[in-house]
Formats: sequence, structure tokens, C-alpha cells
Amino acid sequence: MTRHDHVLEQAVQACRTREHFSPFADRPGKDEASQAAIASAKATFESYLGGRVELDQPASDELKAAETSPFTLAPLDIAYPVSDPDTLFAAADDAMAVWAKVEPERRVDLCLEMVWRLYDRWYEIAHANQHTTGQSFSMSCVGSGVNALDRGIEAIAYAAEAMARVPRSGRWERPFGRTPVALDKRFHLLPRGPAVVITCASFPTWNAYPALFANLATGNPVLVKPHPTSVLTMALMVQTAQEVLAEEGLPSATVQLAVDTPQQPVAKELIAHPRCRIVDFTGSPEFGSWIEANAHPAIAFTETAGVNTVVLESVEDLDPVASAIATSLGLFSAQMCTSVQNLYLPSTGVRTPDGVIAPDDVVDRIVAAVDATATMPSRAAGLLGAVQSPATGDLVGQLTSSVASRGRVVRAGEPYEHPEYPEARTLTPSITVLDPDDRELFGQERFGPISFAVRCADGQDALTHAVRDVADRGSIASHVYSTDPRYQKRATAAYLDAGASVSLNLTGPMPLNFAAAYSDYHVTGLSPAGNACLTDEAFIAGRFRVAQVREPAQQ
Amino acid sequence: MTRHDHVLEQAVQACRTREHFSPFADRPGKDEASQAAIASAKATFESYLGGRVELDQPASDELKAAETSPFTLAPLDIAYPVSDPDTLFAAADDAMAVWAKVEPERRVDLCLEMVWRLYDRWYEIAHANQHTTGQSFSMSCVGSGVNALDRGIEAIAYAAEAMARVPRSGRWERPFGRTPVALDKRFHLLPRGPAVVITCASFPTWNAYPALFANLATGNPVLVKPHPTSVLTMALMVQTAQEVLAEEGLPSATVQLAVDTPQQPVAKELIAHPRCRIVDFTGSPEFGSWIEANAHPAIAFTETAGVNTVVLESVEDLDPVASAIATSLGLFSAQMCTSVQNLYLPSTGVRTPDGVIAPDDVVDRIVAAVDATATMPSRAAGLLGAVQSPATGDLVGQLTSSVASRGRVVRAGEPYEHPEYPEARTLTPSITVLDPDDRELFGQERFGPISFAVRCADGQDALTHAVRDVADRGSIASHVYSTDPRYQKRATAAYLDAGASVSLNLTGPMPLNFAAAYSDYHVTGLSPAGNACLTDEAFIAGRFRVAQVREPAQQ
Repeated sequence: MTRHDHVLEQAVQACRTREHFSPFADRPGKDEASQAAIASAKATFESYLGGRVELDQPASDELKAAETSPFTLAPLDIAYPVSDPDTLFAAADDAMAVWAKVEPERRVDLCLEMVWRLYDRWYEIAHANQHTTGQSFSMSCVGSGVNALDRGIEAIAYAAEAMARVPRSGRWERPFGRTPVALDKRFHLLPRGPAVVITCASFPTWNAYPALFANLATGNPVLVKPHPTSVLTMALMVQTAQEVLAEEGLPSATVQLAVDTPQQPVAKELIAHPRCRIVDFTGSPEFGSWIEANAHPAIAFTETAGVNTVVLESVEDLDPVASAIATSLGLFSAQMCTSVQNLYLPSTGVRTPDGVIAPDDVVDRIVAAVDATATMPSRAAGLLGAVQSPATGDLVGQLTSSVASRGRVVRAGEPYEHPEYPEARTLTPSITVLDPDDRELFGQERFGPISFAVRCADGQDALTHAVRDVADRGSIASHVYSTDPRYQKRATAAYLDAGASVSLNLTGPMPLNFAAAYSDYHVTGLSPAGNACLTDEAFIAGRFRVAQVREPAQQ
Repeated sequence: MTRHDHVLEQAVQACRTREHFSPFADRPGKDEASQAAIASAKATFESYLGGRVELDQPASDELKAAETSPFTLAPLDIAYPVSDPDTLFAAADDAMAVWAKVEPERRVDLCLEMVWRLYDRWYEIAHANQHTTGQSFSMSCVGSGVNALDRGIEAIAYAAEAMARVPRSGRWERPFGRTPVALDKRFHLLPRGPAVVITCASFPTWNAYPALFANLATGNPVLVKPHPTSVLTMALMVQTAQEVLAEEGLPSATVQLAVDTPQQPVAKELIAHPRCRIVDFTGSPEFGSWIEANAHPAIAFTETAGVNTVVLESVEDLDPVASAIATSLGLFSAQMCTSVQNLYLPSTGVRTPDGVIAPDDVVDRIVAAVDATATMPSRAAGLLGAVQSPATGDLVGQLTSSVASRGRVVRAGEPYEHPEYPEARTLTPSITVLDPDDRELFGQERFGPISFAVRCADGQDALTHAVRDVADRGSIASHVYSTDPRYQKRATAAYLDAGASVSLNLTGPMPLNFAAAYSDYHVTGLSPAGNACLTDEAFIAGRFRVAQVREPAQQ
């Protein structure tokens, strides 16, 4: 029995029942002690600015990453150790020679220990995450903090179970002709080999933790290649893992940071390196597809982006629906893989018990719900946060200009004034009404707070258009609102046929964007939105292999 | 409880314990009834010659396959239905729309029913297999018959378990703030999509059954693309599967044959087809690597070939070891993926309790053991069978000429006279002694009955050379003979470090080539010898995906 066995058991059980589980606080504390801890963590974060993050790995030089706080627009000016890929992979191979021979159960326990150490640094990492991604501090603590750690534990639980299902030995007996034959067999779990984990700029921890721990638990060393503008959180993750390894007398280089710059990206070089055996990637569908096609002999696990659709056919009450949609359009300025983008509305209107609501009125209600938050800086700051990249604002601006000539901009995205950080790069949601034949505008992912209301003929037509976009581009989170059981059934079947998940009639305090560890299968793996799922057995199975030793049975 | 539940339970249990299991007779019967059944099956087989195999699938034309019996050298002259890839994939997609919606438990049961129908045609398929592969009738019944069916059941068991571990529904409840949220979630298993199963000329069933059933059980339609010179066995497999489907009112095109000719191969076209989602391949390492690198967006499962090594360091008794090696060199004229090829011998000799045996004497004893069978036509016929392809004899001939100038040919491979089939294409094992610096000759797979004794410096050097070849080229079956526990430990560690399985000191009636369903993990997946294993969870996991439907909990 080790320290973390109980949590592991609970996590395994939750993965089986898909019930709620988390060993963590669900939000940052509001008591005095928590406030003091948050302030102290902020000071720790600030101590990195203009300095360096020390990591225990080969370093031929150091590199100042291109990190700028979306809240202050000040460069973080932090230096990280840097080495060429050959050096990193050589260190990873040396580390693997030791790490792979650590018993799987102990590797699992050490991964859980790393999770707890990351939780010990919860507030510190949340500050780092806030000032690299643009997430509010609260979202940094929850979505990028405890929720991400839960997804990490979930991956550890799947890995532990997959490895436990391989027996370590067995005796095999049968006669050949009249002669009995008895063999003793031992089964060894071998790692696939060095893994490269490529993380995104706006939400790195949520995919990094599962990938890191799925690889580590199954015996593979990991090179973490963060987005060049969002390094610090990943560096602290690597540092935390290295500390646990070092305490146990294990090679720190089992986990290394591979930092780069926007001008000299290193991801393709890492993927093409002859020693690369696994790639975990979060980012654009274009690069994700390239990796899937070109990673060989490495295997690739990707999560990218799709067209997240909302079909509005009929509702019991429009207000909570408009509010749920408005929250998804606003949350972290729609820089999440689960942010909704396209609303498909019947021109015939949305049916309610009190009569039909015309599509323009539906859109107006959603705009009003967005305004209720976006025009109130104190609320906007908590919900929208800041925009990670200046490019996002530029793209949204350009796209808004092009759509304006084709549709009706019912809400223009504009900066809001952040009450705490007046320099913050902010942008409220834009909404444009388009026709279905404007598909080249709405029929793909548009990253950032830009959304489209597509005026379809009727409820069936709305479903048809939504599902077509999902089938072609993939979807990570899609929603249908209908009070008609037959329509619900048709819609469900249509999304499943398109290889996509769907949620029906969600409203209330849980954001539409929310995906629960241990319960929600995140990404089906059947579309350009990614080939991997958090977490299913396929996310684990290929990361380790079985080799056997047979010999005549010793009596 | 369905007809096959008990077998499924036993198979699942055997996969967990890796103990022996088989629901089948272990060899063809010798009683009168069996003899009559074998004769009747032979007549059925002969009825196909010059005729056609009827299949229930789209057919724009028919094609006479390039099949010739290695025993009679007469063309089989059998016609099969043929269609272009677009037509086959369209039919597969239509079939999938039905098959994927059959409950997973029923799909599993129907797969097991197909296994039993194949067993009902055991002798018939064995005759077909004999006269396409060159295997003896006995090996066709055992290795290609019941052993292959066991590997098929094993794959079904893994698929059944993997699908059963995904719950079909769950209720999820947690508060957000002070508001409780309750969601009902349904989890749907979706197939990845149409699979192409490419089988080899000399041993098709052993990989075809696991691939076919792994795909079918998880909801995917299958196109079986047999080697153009070894079609009949696969056509009968497809026919049997189609019969079961048709009886159940399910689309026959869930399983289709995609036959081609050596002059117009269709494999690459099938793999590159936009609807291809899964490729299972058995064949050459070159084509296997190409498929792994180019199958995207399909996922690929490959078994190819490696350098199967034998290291002789020390033995308790040389005779049974020489006999075991000789059997592996001879069995089906070494046309198996588990046939040994390279013997690494210490020049210092092989230690025994009665003194050291010089390497030349060791080789002489192995040659004598080969001669004991190969020079006796009645024994040779049972062990060696015939050579599937004329190209194999040519290649062995050419290679023997090249090695003769570099080494010492201690046994030349020559045809033996088959007692039953005087025209049979036969070839006995050749053995050549080489030096380690002749690695370009022995350091890769040489298909067919050709083997090399490599004179290394000493026991450690023998191990070093063997493991180097395994690391570079992969290995499917490797063997070490040593009575020294420290050497055994070193050798085991070295093979595992090379990503390979190894057997120690195997002798006796079980052929070295034997791999047991439910027990032996066949191919580690870490080398050019193939990326897939029969059977582990990775062989199943990617073939189906999970999509979910969430909605507010209904009280």
C-alpha cells in the first residue's frame, strides 16, 4: 500500500462508473490562509520575471522565451535551459534505461506523487498560467488547475489498469502427442520509447498532464515542447516532475523541457528525430494532421479543433439557453477547444410552450445575454479573461470585416477595460448572422471570440447543416436544444453518424465548455478534431509493449 | 446467455492467466469417420478446381487467380468475383451502417459463430490451404486450422473485454457553486471504419482470423485482400462469414473479398482509398514499413519478419537441442515467421557437462539432425511440405551461390521426392557457416529454407552479434541455449533491451516455431518485424471509438 493507492482506486472506479470524482478543492479558497497563500504564490511567480527557471537537464545555453503577459503586455523575460535535439534525446535514452526498469506500480505511484506536488504549487502555477495564457486567475486555478490535474490522474488510472491487466508470469502446459510440455513464461512491459509532448499556447496543462503521465507511467521519457509564447507553466511542470525523480534517485532527464522560439521552431525536428517514438500534440488541425501523417515510426496522439455547433430547434424556456450559449461564447474569450462557434437557427423560428420565437429575436436574446457580462468590466474580467495572442485579435478583426459584407454583424467584438490590468489585451464576443451559403466563412474553426448565427430553412435543415460541418471538420463539443423527443433522437443519431459527441438541452451553472475527467470521453478520435481521446484505452495501449521470456517449467 | 458464452469466458480467462486453452481437437482425427470426412472435404476442394467460388458481394466481373498447387504444380484455375475499390468500399459503407448498429455483444457472438462454421469446414479449408501454401495437410489442419482459429477467438475475447469495459451509460452529479448538476450520459461505441486485411501467401489464416474478427467485433466492415497466389482459403473464409451474416439478415458485404493479380496489384489502391480506415497486413518488412508510414488516415497493424536468432552458449545435452533446431530449420521449409535462421556459435565451443564441443561439431550434429528427416521422403513430406513460390527456390539458389564464396556450405538445400506428389516443389534446408563480418549475407531475413551458422569469438560475442541483428532488423522468435544462470540473465536482458522476446533452452516435442494463442504475445511491436501483437489491447483499442450523449438527468 503506497500513499496514493486510495486515490488510484477511486479514480479507477470513477472511470468505470463515469461518476463524479475529484480529490481536490473545486475552487481557490476564499479564507484568509488561502488569500495569503495566493499572495505568496504571486510573489513566487513574480520572482521568475526577468530571471530564469532552473531545470536539471543538459543545457548548452539558455533562451529567453517570447512570453508576454496578455494582462500587462510586459515581456516575462524568463530564461530557460536549451539544448539541441540530439542532446535531449540522448539524455532521454539514458534516463529511460533506468526509468523503464522501475516497477510499473512504482512508476504509477511516482506519477501520482508528481500530481500532488503540482497541487502543492497550485496557486503558483495558476499565476504562471494566467500570465501566459490570458486566463483569469480563477480559470487558471480550476480549468487549468484541478480539472487538468484530474485529467492527469485519469490517464494514470487508465495506464495503471492497462498494465495490471498484463500478467507478469504464467505457467503453460499441454501435451504434444503423448508428451506433456510445461513452460514458464514471464511477460515484460517495455516502453515504446522517447515521447515528445507538444502543448498549446492557451490551455497547455489540460492536455499536458494526461500526456506526460500516460507516457511516464508506461515507462517512456518525455520531452515537453511548449508553445514558444506559453512556456512557464510547462517549465514548472517539468521542474516539479524532476524534483520528484531526483528525490527518488531517478534520472531527472526522464522529463525535460525542449523550449524554442517562434522564429526557430523545433517541433518538426523533434518529431523527425530518429529516436522519437511517441508524439502528443495539442494545436491546430493543420499541424495535427501533418503530425498524424508524418510521425512514423512514432505514434501520434492529437487533439486539435473542430467546428463546435449549436442547433436550436425548440426550447422550454429561451432565457437559460441564451445564457448558457452566451457564457460559452464569452468564457476565456472562446479560446477553448470546447467553445461553441456556430448557432444553426430555423428561419421558421424556435418553438417554445409560449409560441414561436423568430430567429432574429433569438439572436437578440443571445446578444443581450452576452452584453450582460461583456459590458460590465468586473464580470467580463472573470469570464472573458484576456486574449493570449495578438494574432487572435487581428484575425477576428479581419474576419469581421469580411463577414460584414456578407451578413449582419449583430454584435461587434471590442476590447473591454480590465479593472485590474488596464493594459490587458481583451476582446468581447462578436456575432454575425449568415446564410448557409456563406459556408466558406463559418464552415471551419475560427479561433477566438467570433461566432456565427446561421439562418437555416427549418429545424431539420439546421440539423443537416450543423452535422455536415461536423462531419467535414470535426467537432469537440456540440449542442442541440429541442423539446421534441423524435427530433432529439434524429439529432443524436445524426451526430453519432458523423462520429461526434453531442449534448442535449444543457443549461444551468455548468458551462457548456466543461468536460469532466473520469466521465466525459473528450474527443472521439474520428475526425480532424484529433485522433485521441481523454481518456480511453487507445490513449494508453500503444505506449507500452509486451515482450516475453519462455523457458521449460522449473518444478 | 448465447451459444458461445462459455467459450468466450474460458478464452477471456486464459488470456488473463496465459494458460493453455483450446475448444478444438488438436489434430485431425485418425478414426474412420474422420478419414471419411477428410476424403469428402478433399472432394469438395477438388470441385472448386477449374470452377468458381460464389460470394455474396458486388461483382462487375470475375477473375481467375494466379493460384498453382505447390504439390501438383497444376493451376487451380478458380474464378472469384471482382470489383473496383470504389464499389467495394461503397458496399462496405452500406454494410457498416447496419453492422455498426448491431449490439457489440451480438457482434461478438456472431464472430464466434463464424469461428465455429470455419471449424465445421476444417478439413475442406485445410485442403485449400495445403494446395495454395504448400503446407502439409497436417500443418494445414493444425497450424493453419485450429491454432489459427484459437488466435481468432483470442482476438474476439480481447475485443469483447475492451468493449465491455466501456460503460454504456452513467449518471454524473456534482454541485457548481451551490447548485447541484446531474447529467445522464450515454456512451456509444463507434467503429473506426472500413478495414483492409492483406494476407500473405504462405500462412494466411493465422493472421487473417485475428484481424477479421478484431475488426468485425468492433463494428468495422472488412475487405480481405489475399496474396494473389493464395486466394482460395481466404475466399472460403469470406464465404463462411457471409453465410452467417446472411442467415441473420445482416449485410453480406460486411465481409468482402478483394482479389487481384501479381500483374495488377490492388493493395496500395485499397490502402490509399479515402474510405480506408484500418489496414491489417502480413507480408514483407519493406511493404509493412511503407504501410505504417503511408496508411494515414487509416491506422495500420503489421506483422512482417525479422531475423530469428539462436545463440548456443552451453547445453546440458546437445542432441535434443540439435533436434529442436533442425526441426525449426525444416518445418514447412522455414516459410514461417517463427522459423529460426541464424545460429550464433562461440568459436571456443559449446560447453556441456561432458566437455566442450567444437563449433564445427555442433554444426555437424545439427546437419545430421536435419538429414535424419530431410533425406527420408516420408518424414520430409510431413515436416517440410512444399515451397509456396517458385521465387523462393530461385532466391535460395542465388543466395547459396553468393554465400558459397564467403563461407562453407555444410548442407546444400535440394529438392526431395515427395512420396504422394512427385511434381511437388520441394527444398530441404541449407546451412552455411559464415564469419560475423559476412553480416550483409546473414544480417536480414532470408525467406525460405536457408540458414547460417555464424562463428563468433565466444559466448558473449555470440550474444552481442545476435542481439545486434535483432535490434536492427527485429525478431519474431529468438532462442538462447545456456546452462549458466548468469548468462541466461544477461541474454534475457539483452533481448529485452532490443525490444525482443526470447526463449531459453527449449527442446522437446513442441516445435520452436510454436506460438500459443491466449498465452504467447506474438511480436512485440517494437521493431521492423511488425508494429502489432497477437493479441494485446493495442491490437483492439484503436478499432473502435467512444462518442457520448449528455443530457440533464431525467428524475
